[in-house]
Amino acid sequence: RQDAAAEEEEDNHTSLEDQWQDEEYFGSYGTLRLHLEMLSDKSRTEAYRKVIVSNSASLRSKVVMDLGCGTGIISLFCAQLAQPSEVYAVEASSMAEYTRQLVKQNGCEQVVTVLQGRAEEIELPKQVDVLVSEWMGNCLLFEFMVESVLLARDRWLKEGGVMWPSSAALTLVPCQANSYYAEKMTFWEQPYGLDFTPLQPLAQQEFFTKPKFNHVIEPDDCLTAPSDVLCLDMYTLQVKDLEEIKGQFHFCVEKPGVFHGFTSWFTVHFESLETGGATVELNTGPNSQPTHWKQTLFMLDRPVSVHAGDSISGTILLRRNPFWRRHMTITLHWSINSCKKETDNCQANHRLGQRVSPCGG
Amino acid sequence: RQDAAAEEEEDNHTSLEDQWQDEEYFGSYGTLRLHLEMLSDKSRTEAYRKVIVSNSASLRSKVVMDLGCGTGIISLFCAQLAQPSEVYAVEASSMAEYTRQLVKQNGCEQVVTVLQGRAEEIELPKQVDVLVSEWMGNCLLFEFMVESVLLARDRWLKEGGVMWPSSAALTLVPCQANSYYAEKMTFWEQPYGLDFTPLQPLAQQEFFTKPKFNHVIEPDDCLTAPSDVLCLDMYTLQVKDLEEIKGQFHFCVEKPGVFHGFTSWFTVHFESLETGGATVELNTGPNSQPTHWKQTLFMLDRPVSVHAGDSISGTILLRRNPFWRRHMTITLHWSINSCKKETDNCQANHRLGQRVSPCGG
Ligand SMILES: [Ca+2]
Ligand SMILES: [Ca+2]
Repeated sequence: RQDAAAEEEEDNHTSLEDQWQDEEYFGSYGTLRLHLEMLSDKSRTEAYRKVIVSNSASLRSKVVMDLGCGTGIISLFCAQLAQPSEVYAVEASSMAEYTRQLVKQNGCEQVVTVLQGRAEEIELPKQVDVLVSEWMGNCLLFEFMVESVLLARDRWLKEGGVMWPSSAALTLVPCQANSYYAEKMTFWEQPYGLDFTPLQPLAQQEFFTKPKFNHVIEPDDCLTAPSDVLCLDMYTLQVKDLEEIKGQFHFCVEKPGVFHGFTSWFTVHFESLETGGATVELNTGPNSQPTHWKQTLFMLDRPVSVHAGDSISGTILLRRNPFWRRHMTITLHWSINSCKKETDNCQANHRLGQRVSPCGG
Repeated sequence: RQDAAAEEEEDNHTSLEDQWQDEEYFGSYGTLRLHLEMLSDKSRTEAYRKVIVSNSASLRSKVVMDLGCGTGIISLFCAQLAQPSEVYAVEASSMAEYTRQLVKQNGCEQVVTVLQGRAEEIELPKQVDVLVSEWMGNCLLFEFMVESVLLARDRWLKEGGVMWPSSAALTLVPCQANSYYAEKMTFWEQPYGLDFTPLQPLAQQEFFTKPKFNHVIEPDDCLTAPSDVLCLDMYTLQVKDLEEIKGQFHFCVEKPGVFHGFTSWFTVHFESLETGGATVELNTGPNSQPTHWKQTLFMLDRPVSVHAGDSISGTILLRRNPFWRRHMTITLHWSINSCKKETDNCQANHRLGQRVSPCGG
């Protein structure tokens, strides 16, 4: 009987880990490909460097935790560009042993300590003044590394300590996506003079019902001004808040065009520790320098013509998958209020896949 | 005892299928993504159309098999642009049921019969005059669909029947790969002013020991004239010949440069059925229109400076994986004979992955 109970416990344990798909998740960060992609992203990496440089005076003698440090670039910035007393560089994947070598190679081993382990389990010698992390994924939350950051905050951040980023916002805009629509849908109308329209329902299912993560939107494809649909305060956000997050939007169409879908991106802000210092911002939208996150496109079932003066209003719901804990489903509801004619009511469910796809975020 | 024997047989059967990874392989062709990629490849698709058009007189009343027909585009070209008596469109994946709809939608159901099944198992009503197939993969042979074509040839092609393509060649050229080398290797020398060289051995292992399939080589990156290293005659080629294929090369360096690796691509030829008709060629090299196959790059362990007048000689060996039947290992041996100084002897083993990666070929 005891054996059976032990086995059951082990089963539960295995199944819990599986829900986080940690082997796959941390496995992918054990190879260089993703780290190279992130390091090669200058907008991202320079933003973190700028945060360190512009706060270097205030960082003197502070204790810093760099959570999910990867190759340790942020920790090395801290050690070389400021004078913290200690930096704890925490990394769960097997990259950690290389990170240790890089810290040594760059002469930072007096300041930077690499700790291999999951944020939930790691033990630090002391509490920290600053918790810095690059936890953002596609659509801001995908992969839900943010949960590890919140748990680390609650365990290790001193009262009055600082979170970098300090806040995060998800932005949405109704847009055209002419070439994507042509490539994936119009294509079947007459390829090589043939009629392949019987494949269009399959194309819609395969290309339009899941978010397209690697989309690059031109500013000109935005049909309205973009709008922040949700804002997260990294000091007050709770793990349970992540289960279901709702936002609203109300857009005014500025020019006539074809409404193919919604595009989203995120911005994070890093508050200044210096008196009167300016906030550093990392904006992954179409008016900023490109990043490896690019933008995310949610296609409508079918395109709608819109006119200047029309309005597009609705809600966005991010529901974390109750089983696959790194996944979520994003549901958009909207209605178009035409200044010209009828009102269309539409709904589209955009699901994030049933598997962790290491999609660069 | 009988049960045990039956089970064992089933086990053997399962394991055999697994060696072909058919579920994964045909599964990937059951979605639209790969078919759209192939159809959107105009060089590829127009080459097959040109073959049909330029042989339309000779195709009259002929029986054609289109093996691995996908969406049926080649069969539809046959039915609409020539007057064959029958076209058997054979497709193993679940795409076959859509192919049937497309045949109907385009009014070709009198001529084109879609048969769902594997080439090895399918039964045709009669033998065929022409066996046409687009079986080529990365490095020509990857995925080894060619085996199915050879088996179909031996079972169903009439004495004196025609194979399209009729022959195939693999081409090799020593080349520069400056930006790929810089991105994956030089990058670690000083990212953001830091020394990340301890990651270079990892980078070499991760980025240089496997072939890079999606490479695009500029004509200017070729250090010598390209050379065909192996040629396959689709009439006489036998399945057993595929186990191990050897080729030789001897290149003369034409201009000074950095020898980063070898790039390969393939060309297939379609013989004419018309008296005095010209051969149609589909060339996937850097001097032709781009195709979805792009080119394949094999990086050296480290770059070598070469000078006009140097020669690069050696052998290429394609060894089919004895277990994973859709995979192979490509081994290149070479020596550089410098007109200036010493002789380097090098060897690199380039393995094709341990899994079927649906890499577009
Ligand atoms: Ca990330
Ligand atoms: Ca192919």
